[in-house]
Amino acid sequence: MDSWLPISAKSHFSLANIPFGIISTSAASQPRVAVAIGDYALDLDCLARHQGFSQCTALEQAHLDIFSDASLNRFASLGRALHRDVRQYIQSLLRVDTPFPALLRDNSELRNKALILSQQITNHLPMTIGDYTDFFAGRNHAQTVGALFRGPDNALNPNYNHLPVAYHGRASSVVVSGTPLHRPKGQVMPPGAPAPVFKPCSRLDIELELGMFIARPNELGQPIAVDDADDYIFGYVLMNDWSARDIQAWEYVPLGPFNAKNFGTTISPWVVLADATEPFKTTGLPNDTNLQQYLKESNKENIVDFNLEVALCTEDGDSTVITRTSSKNLLWSWPQMIAHHTISGCNLRTGDLLGSGTISGLEERTQGSLLEQTRGGKSPIKLHGGHERIFVNDNDTIVMTGYAGTTKSGLVGFGECRGKILPCV
Amino acid sequence: MDSWLPISAKSHFSLANIPFGIISTSAASQPRVAVAIGDYALDLDCLARHQGFSQCTALEQAHLDIFSDASLNRFASLGRALHRDVRQYIQSLLRVDTPFPALLRDNSELRNKALILSQQITNHLPMTIGDYTDFFAGRNHAQTVGALFRGPDNALNPNYNHLPVAYHGRASSVVVSGTPLHRPKGQVMPPGAPAPVFKPCSRLDIELELGMFIARPNELGQPIAVDDADDYIFGYVLMNDWSARDIQAWEYVPLGPFNAKNFGTTISPWVVLADATEPFKTTGLPNDTNLQQYLKESNKENIVDFNLEVALCTEDGDSTVITRTSSKNLLWSWPQMIAHHTISGCNLRTGDLLGSGTISGLEERTQGSLLEQTRGGKSPIKLHGGHERIFVNDNDTIVMTGYAGTTKSGLVGFGECRGKILPCV
Repeated sequence: MDSWLPISAKSHFSLANIPFGIISTSAASQPRVAVAIGDYALDLDCLARHQGFSQCTALEQAHLDIFSDASLNRFASLGRALHRDVRQYIQSLLRVDTPFPALLRDNSELRNKALILSQQITNHLPMTIGDYTDFFAGRNHAQTVGALFRGPDNALNPNYNHLPVAYHGRASSVVVSGTPLHRPKGQVMPPGAPAPVFKPCSRLDIELELGMFIARPNELGQPIAVDDADDYIFGYVLMNDWSARDIQAWEYVPLGPFNAKNFGTTISPWVVLADATEPFKTTGLPNDTNLQQYLKESNKENIVDFNLEVALCTEDGDSTVITRTSSKNLLWSWPQMIAHHTISGCNLRTGDLLGSGTISGLEERTQGSLLEQTRGGKSPIKLHGGHERIFVNDNDTIVMTGYAGTTKSGLVGFGECRGKILPCV
Repeated sequence: MDSWLPISAKSHFSLANIPFGIISTSAASQPRVAVAIGDYALDLDCLARHQGFSQCTALEQAHLDIFSDASLNRFASLGRALHRDVRQYIQSLLRVDTPFPALLRDNSELRNKALILSQQITNHLPMTIGDYTDFFAGRNHAQTVGALFRGPDNALNPNYNHLPVAYHGRASSVVVSGTPLHRPKGQVMPPGAPAPVFKPCSRLDIELELGMFIARPNELGQPIAVDDADDYIFGYVLMNDWSARDIQAWEYVPLGPFNAKNFGTTISPWVVLADATEPFKTTGLPNDTNLQQYLKESNKENIVDFNLEVALCTEDGDSTVITRTSSKNLLWSWPQMIAHHTISGCNLRTGDLLGSGTISGLEERTQGSLLEQTRGGKSPIKLHGGHERIFVNDNDTIVMTGYAGTTKSGLVGFGECRGKILPCV
């Protein structure tokens, strides 16, 4: 599938992708809906205002104002079938053999208005997030971190292979890629000290995760069956669940992490729709546990195979890839996470964000957190330019990237999830 | 301070209170803002449309449409000074010696329209809740439950007296008083069993808490100083943080409670404004820990003295008060909770809900959870009508009530926080 628009084979935003996001520009500061394509954002609000959707039978004219919204929530709530149709329609407009050449390809005035170079756009949070739930589905991460804290024989807690462990995260501080965050301060208990001290976090870590947005709600008291759960998935982003390990170690007993995580979570700006990832579904980590019925899936290939990478960029411009891994390192699928989240009767809402948990391999430089890579902060990792790191320094920038597919068929990727740590306020 | 409206001395909604909520009626189904007064709701949207606020200098005419909102968020965001002025203005309208008799007291047509008998209204959730955070500030509860799990010598974790422990809760399933909830199902690990089982929760518990709503936001990265925190408080509600103890015991390691709590949290409908509670501030439980500077308050009397009660009503109509206690059983004040929550840089938003944690005394029938009252589920409590309970049965209704003040000066109370448990779906 080729486009009349020149798209580099290395672009994450091939014609096979068409991820949705919220943009603004200096010329038009009102946030609105767009899709990413090659080096451009295609402004769907502009397209809709200029009859670009006139041949899109799926989308009634009454719905076209969804593209002037400042979030994707209304679009998401219209359901998987509509997302599929609208994405295919946009692909049809951009195909070299588009059936509707007059609408965009041969309409230079609209092309100039609606196709905006990505350098000229500002990305905003794609969704208004209701609740944010973070799972712990990366078993290698759980295993390695558990071994650091409790020894290899007790690394995984007894519940781990029976249910997708999760906790409620902080929604207010989820920020879009490019938003800098200040290093948090907090209480820390130094080893052997008689009392805690108050200081800037000195073990500031990253967590490489996938994020998933919920499309449609369920009623309170009505669990979602695991085989129906795919219908509730809008799409995916990359996520950096920043973690203050020293604050976490002191505060987390008995109710879990709180201030160690709530100072910020960074997500990539473009939501890769669930339909775009269908060709890349595979199996995750094996689980030989006899699962409860509500977690048993008919479809055994329910993990999307994303190649993931983390780079650390120092203040003086040296960039080093510190992690290369794959989302196949997840034990639980999104449908299993949804089924478990709602089995109590808990209701999900359009725009809720679910995190996968840290995605790690077991080998060196495949691990999604520095805690794992530095063996609990004991072995520094070496970076280009002669730098070393145990945890994140002030003015370091973390760039996460990820994609599925091949350059031949077109990459289906996220672009960047980028965040810089500024010194304490 | 007497009203021209007859108000029973036992009413929680005296002229000294004036709590705000969201109501609708069968005649007017659009949710809108009201205050509770005696046996009535005073419909502020109706009042505003009929010039009832014409002498309220604090409220510009441009702002009057806030009373037609379906939540109190915009009103809350206007700040403490305005809340105080509007509350005093409403009191002035209702006083027997009102300076503006023509506006309401002597305007029978408007009285008939704007004063609605409480039996005729439907209460809605008062705020659109962004994030919900539950603290653990009731030290007697932490002590008693900790002793049950870890023995009396290790009852409190080492961090307990140093910081207000908290976790992120589930906002989507916070419901208003009167909303029934279904008993959740989930995974439970029976003692000694080789594997977990899936079943209806059989240890369904209550938690008596106060809830607090945030008025104004802080910027991400900008902590709120403890002595400034009062300004961020909109007001208070009663809260029942329903808890599935058997599900909790199996799932909560290592990230805290999840499905054990996310099936529902019930709050009372009327928000008692912070200003209404100023006369009732006192000290909470003593803490001889040398606190970090960010938790040290200039004002040592920062706990509101609410008398609290829990009744259990069986299906056949027997009602027994099972708990009588006081919010003086809190170790941490709301300003300390706010200061701790934001010390990491975490941002709060208008409408965020903070829970106090379970409020318990140490004596029999002063404890805010059944787990404590039944000594971990071992000793049934006796109810009227010959009933016994260890935990909540299907079709039981829990009614929490609470008030400050005296019948002489006028009670400042919440009304009811009521919830019935229906059988599993």
